[in-house]
Amino acid sequence: MKNSYTKKEQYYGDYLGLDKILNAQFPESEARGVDAHDEMLFIIIHQAYELWFKQIMHELDSILELFGQEEINDNSSTLQVATHRTNRIVEIWKLLVSQVTVLETMTPMDFLDFRDLLAPASGFQSFQFRKLEAKIGLKMKSRHEACYYQYQLRKEDIKGITELEGEDSLLDLMDKWLKRIPFWNNEFWQDFEVPEGASTDLHPFWATYRHIYQSGLIGAELKSIDMSDFDSLFFGKGGVSTRLSPESCQTALFITLYRDNPLFQVPFQFLSKWLEIDELMASWRYRHMSMVRRMIGMRIGTGGSSGANYLKGAMEKHHIFSDFTRLTTYLIPRAKLPELPVALKEKMRFVDL
Amino acid sequence: MKNSYTKKEQYYGDYLGLDKILNAQFPESEARGVDAHDEMLFIIIHQAYELWFKQIMHELDSILELFGQEEINDNSSTLQVATHRTNRIVEIWKLLVSQVTVLETMTPMDFLDFRDLLAPASGFQSFQFRKLEAKIGLKMKSRHEACYYQYQLRKEDIKGITELEGEDSLLDLMDKWLKRIPFWNNEFWQDFEVPEGASTDLHPFWATYRHIYQSGLIGAELKSIDMSDFDSLFFGKGGVSTRLSPESCQTALFITLYRDNPLFQVPFQFLSKWLEIDELMASWRYRHMSMVRRMIGMRIGTGGSSGANYLKGAMEKHHIFSDFTRLTTYLIPRAKLPELPVALKEKMRFVDL
Amino acid sequence: MKNSYTKKEQYYGDYLGLDKILNAQFPESEARGVDAHDEMLFIIIHQAYELWFKQIMHELDSILELFGQEEINDNSSTLQVATHRTNRIVEIWKLLVSQVTVLETMTPMDFLDFRDLLAPASGFQSFQFRKLEAKIGLKMKSRHEACYYQYQLRKEDIKGITELEGEDSLLDLMDKWLKRIPFWNNEFWQDFEVPEGASTDLHPFWATYRHIYQSGLIGAELKSIDMSDFDSLFFGKGGVSTRLSPESCQTALFITLYRDNPLFQVPFQFLSKWLEIDELMASWRYRHMSMVRRMIGMRIGTGGSSGANYLKGAMEKHHIFSDFTRLTTYLIPRAKLPELPVALKEKMRFVDL
Amino acid sequence: MKNSYTKKEQYYGDYLGLDKILNAQFPESEARGVDAHDEMLFIIIHQAYELWFKQIMHELDSILELFGQEEINDNSSTLQVATHRTNRIVEIWKLLVSQVTVLETMTPMDFLDFRDLLAPASGFQSFQFRKLEAKIGLKMKSRHEACYYQYQLRKEDIKGITELEGEDSLLDLMDKWLKRIPFWNNEFWQDFEVPEGASTDLHPFWATYRHIYQSGLIGAELKSIDMSDFDSLFFGKGGVSTRLSPESCQTALFITLYRDNPLFQVPFQFLSKWLEIDELMASWRYRHMSMVRRMIGMRIGTGGSSGANYLKGAMEKHHIFSDFTRLTTYLIPRAKLPELPVALKEKMRFVDL
Repeated sequence: MKNSYTKKEQYYGDYLGLDKILNAQFPESEARGVDAHDEMLFIIIHQAYELWFKQIMHELDSILELFGQEEINDNSSTLQVATHRTNRIVEIWKLLVSQVTVLETMTPMDFLDFRDLLAPASGFQSFQFRKLEAKIGLKMKSRHEACYYQYQLRKEDIKGITELEGEDSLLDLMDKWLKRIPFWNNEFWQDFEVPEGASTDLHPFWATYRHIYQSGLIGAELKSIDMSDFDSLFFGKGGVSTRLSPESCQTALFITLYRDNPLFQVPFQFLSKWLEIDELMASWRYRHMSMVRRMIGMRIGTGGSSGANYLKGAMEKHHIFSDFTRLTTYLIPRAKLPELPVALKEKMRFVDL
Repeated sequence: MKNSYTKKEQYYGDYLGLDKILNAQFPESEARGVDAHDEMLFIIIHQAYELWFKQIMHELDSILELFGQEEINDNSSTLQVATHRTNRIVEIWKLLVSQVTVLETMTPMDFLDFRDLLAPASGFQSFQFRKLEAKIGLKMKSRHEACYYQYQLRKEDIKGITELEGEDSLLDLMDKWLKRIPFWNNEFWQDFEVPEGASTDLHPFWATYRHIYQSGLIGAELKSIDMSDFDSLFFGKGGVSTRLSPESCQTALFITLYRDNPLFQVPFQFLSKWLEIDELMASWRYRHMSMVRRMIGMRIGTGGSSGANYLKGAMEKHHIFSDFTRLTTYLIPRAKLPELPVALKEKMRFVDL
Repeated sequence: MKNSYTKKEQYYGDYLGLDKILNAQFPESEARGVDAHDEMLFIIIHQAYELWFKQIMHELDSILELFGQEEINDNSSTLQVATHRTNRIVEIWKLLVSQVTVLETMTPMDFLDFRDLLAPASGFQSFQFRKLEAKIGLKMKSRHEACYYQYQLRKEDIKGITELEGEDSLLDLMDKWLKRIPFWNNEFWQDFEVPEGASTDLHPFWATYRHIYQSGLIGAELKSIDMSDFDSLFFGKGGVSTRLSPESCQTALFITLYRDNPLFQVPFQFLSKWLEIDELMASWRYRHMSMVRRMIGMRIGTGGSSGANYLKGAMEKHHIFSDFTRLTTYLIPRAKLPELPVALKEKMRFVDL
Repeated sequence: MKNSYTKKEQYYGDYLGLDKILNAQFPESEARGVDAHDEMLFIIIHQAYELWFKQIMHELDSILELFGQEEINDNSSTLQVATHRTNRIVEIWKLLVSQVTVLETMTPMDFLDFRDLLAPASGFQSFQFRKLEAKIGLKMKSRHEACYYQYQLRKEDIKGITELEGEDSLLDLMDKWLKRIPFWNNEFWQDFEVPEGASTDLHPFWATYRHIYQSGLIGAELKSIDMSDFDSLFFGKGGVSTRLSPESCQTALFITLYRDNPLFQVPFQFLSKWLEIDELMASWRYRHMSMVRRMIGMRIGTGGSSGANYLKGAMEKHHIFSDFTRLTTYLIPRAKLPELPVALKEKMRFVDL
């Protein structure tokens, strides 16, 4: 029997659209008869970044779709598939960070050969990158101000990104997912013993946990760790503003603490990998900033901004999952963890084979 | 005063031709209504490879042009510029090797979702990559046979590559460059003393060097190192076939031995970096082969070939600079190096400031 | 209250035993008054390798201990912890592969300055590395012959490694673990329908799977894929020898095919990561071989062997998990997978919360 | 003839002092009977860092010795050797940056298992690292204050580092080297034409260069670039303090501008690679800081400090070659470079062969 697939012969170059890909480089220096060998590198490395941004978007969109479902069933493959794709985003970001090394082979003098021809195009105007940030959960108001005004995104681009804010970001969807997990139902906690001295206003587990945490602080920590941050994060009491709801912070910490539990293995991986992506994106901004500083010193970036300064601001403000990172402060050693009620533990395991 | 450059406003996305780049992905699975999430990755990673191949071609072409000049003047910047661009090719290849990691996030099962749709397109049909190999100096007859016949390059592609063989490859141009360097003129060597027992048929330096080398072999080496390989390489006497002329092998070894000399510093770097590229291309083929083996086991590659086997053959046969690598065998310790004639040394230094 | 921990003040250098670590470099060239700047690098990079081998051993031993338990309970954290530590071994091997780059900054001429002083010490004599190979599952008889005889391991080292073979290797323990999983009990498969034309001698699932696989082979594959390899692997019928039992091969393939199942998520990761380690160890041998070839050409290695040749042999023969890699050949597309019996699926999920 | 070298048999393990290296791990948790599997990783990774610091010290010391010579002769191999060894330091730092990835496989919960046992030992107390910083040129007064006081270096360590400040650092020796290069002698510049409008107080070249630079500033740059920084840097006029002398800044910029010149090729590489090291050390501090933040949140570091904050301060203040980096701001495009006097160019080339 003939295999119907082979009827239409596929050539590698056609399949990959190489006529488009390899004919999309138009050095401005060439158009103006200026000699600037390195402009091709500048174009191609940015095109490679954009290709990878498209791939990250492909993965992210599929994760958003998976998480946009009414409810994530732990027995479906949803979270596992999302984690697998998140891991791919991790690997792509690692590549993008190391890709900066190639651009660093361009010396400042070689960049000067064509730098003025680009104005006001700038390496920071990537619409796809801004969309990625927004879809993950970076809000307009949290952005470094230079991001929109100085960087001359087109009006329609800013509008596009603003519209994305109306939709659920990954952070929003994570919040919903974490919130709904019903670990705190009374049925599980009836026999759970709260230690003396612990608050009586809180759920037994959290009263206990808060008590253990506070008792464990020693020396210098006693002064530097303020329980009001703890109370803001987990109970919404206090002035520190958070993006995650207190319920989600509770669940996220709970998963981290009891990750040995079968039910928590994949959720823990999923959360960890997104923290890693946040870090990698920050690393990329940092590498990018250092490269720009080395390339143009204290000059103005091609997009009319003081490039290095913008990136420094972005580096500090653009972490999206900082609420998760703050949780780390409130971990307690495994040896001091409260033993969970048997009824709850029974709910977090596999049916036995 | 108005800066004329800024008259035409450049937008990042326009400048980079992103409308072409980001609209050149056409998953076959989508066209056929098959669900195969990972085909996008397969397309985009190959497109990224091709973008980088274009960049390597840009650098390589400029080096070929520099070396195609009548004569390379050591006081021009030719060799320095060529070395700088060669170094960029090194950094790009390092990136391409690590890029394989991203493709490894695709599991064999995920590849099977669309693998049959691609036949006979294959990951080994890259015309640009074959052109790169040919321009650097890989000859048709040295290629693994599967390369052309099994891999279904189009007729016009094979013709294009064959035509490239008629032109000077980088290896050919290196040979010309190394050959012309006039270190062996009698004027320099009149007072040079050849040790007793050395051949009287050879140039004094080489008679001496051969003698020192042979005397230094110890134990197991005595049996395993055959001087006929030495004589083939440096004097064209013997059955071992070489791509480089004996004169070029002499000069290349001489540069390696006396690299401390100002005149040899950049030439040594240039040669070393091309050996590194040869190694990196081999590493890339190796990583590629391992990845294919992990992905399809002992099946047939999408181009109708036993992918892993081809790559294994290519890995062993496709080294282009193997003559240079063989030189390493014939190095002698610095402490035993013949002292060069003063008259020659005077020719290999800077004018004093 | 005073914290008793702080009673004993720990200094960084004392805690890390730096007096030992930083006073363990004794260049032979220094002892003999020979000038060989790069010998320090040679010593330190090998010491760094050995430190990391010790760390890998620490992780591997803990995994062997976990797997040496009577039975691995899916509801314990055993497999998750083992997978986490396996992942650390992956990251260490990635580092060790890239570490070769540092040694490559030593030129062949610089190595010659001290190479002869080392004989017969060789870079391939690492006892720890041999032990690692043995503990993972490399058998004496599968090793490249040069490994023991030419490389002059001390008698007690060879004895030590041979003794390790008497103990259960990781591969042995994996085999036990995979074998015991009771997926094939009749109770699950009573209503499972075997397609017409399938074998009646096999378990219904495998009869079906074999039938689907064989029917799916097309064109060139039909000739190149021999079902006797399939039958050797999964049913022990046929001449191809395997290290894994047929039952384990069945389970490993089953896990790969149905990895979306909650129960299989961590097992699938565990298996995948060990395949990755096998690949990374091969990559390391490959990088090492290339480096040696570049360093000494066709000479004899410092341990009296033709270094590059040995490594090439080792590269081809020293894969430990090749049975797992072969499984890849026999995957079928997700769309053609038999639907599992409901009773079995019920056993592979979480208790509902 | 017998080779005397082989008389004393060298075993790999003896040669490498593995009895010391592999018996220098004393987990505090083990001593106290606490279960903390990951402490071994914590110890070994820091030991690996210290080994590499020793290697960097070995290279740096040899470079300091080379540069400590009365005068660096461009026709000696001094600068070439120094550049080669500097490049090795670059490769080591790249490894050290990526090594952080291995430590990141330790989760915060796993660190908590032994974190309290370490106090007050801290990952920031490395005496070798402080010495490296000092030898390269970081001054006490430029350090982030936490560096000495909070980090509890031992008194003798602080004394040792302070003493190092009395010796010439690499930055000092670079300054001396750059200062002595006699490009500005009148003999070369008699016929050099200074453009109208340029200062008449300055050396003809610098009057010209300053004029071209200032005329080239456009738009936003006009306001943001202050010529007083230029005048501080190159003429010592102005309030901005610099570590390099104005003469050295002049020479360094001159080398960068005219790097195509044979005489400048190696000096340009040398300067570039040290800027790269500065960047890599900053990258390492950054990765380290991110890792600490992820590990301990806002807690106090094991050395009693708020780890992440210290590192952030160090990241900003500990650049050693910032004067060189500032030069980049004052580059002008190649097309606008003044043509050098023929007499000077003649002094910067090779004797013709």
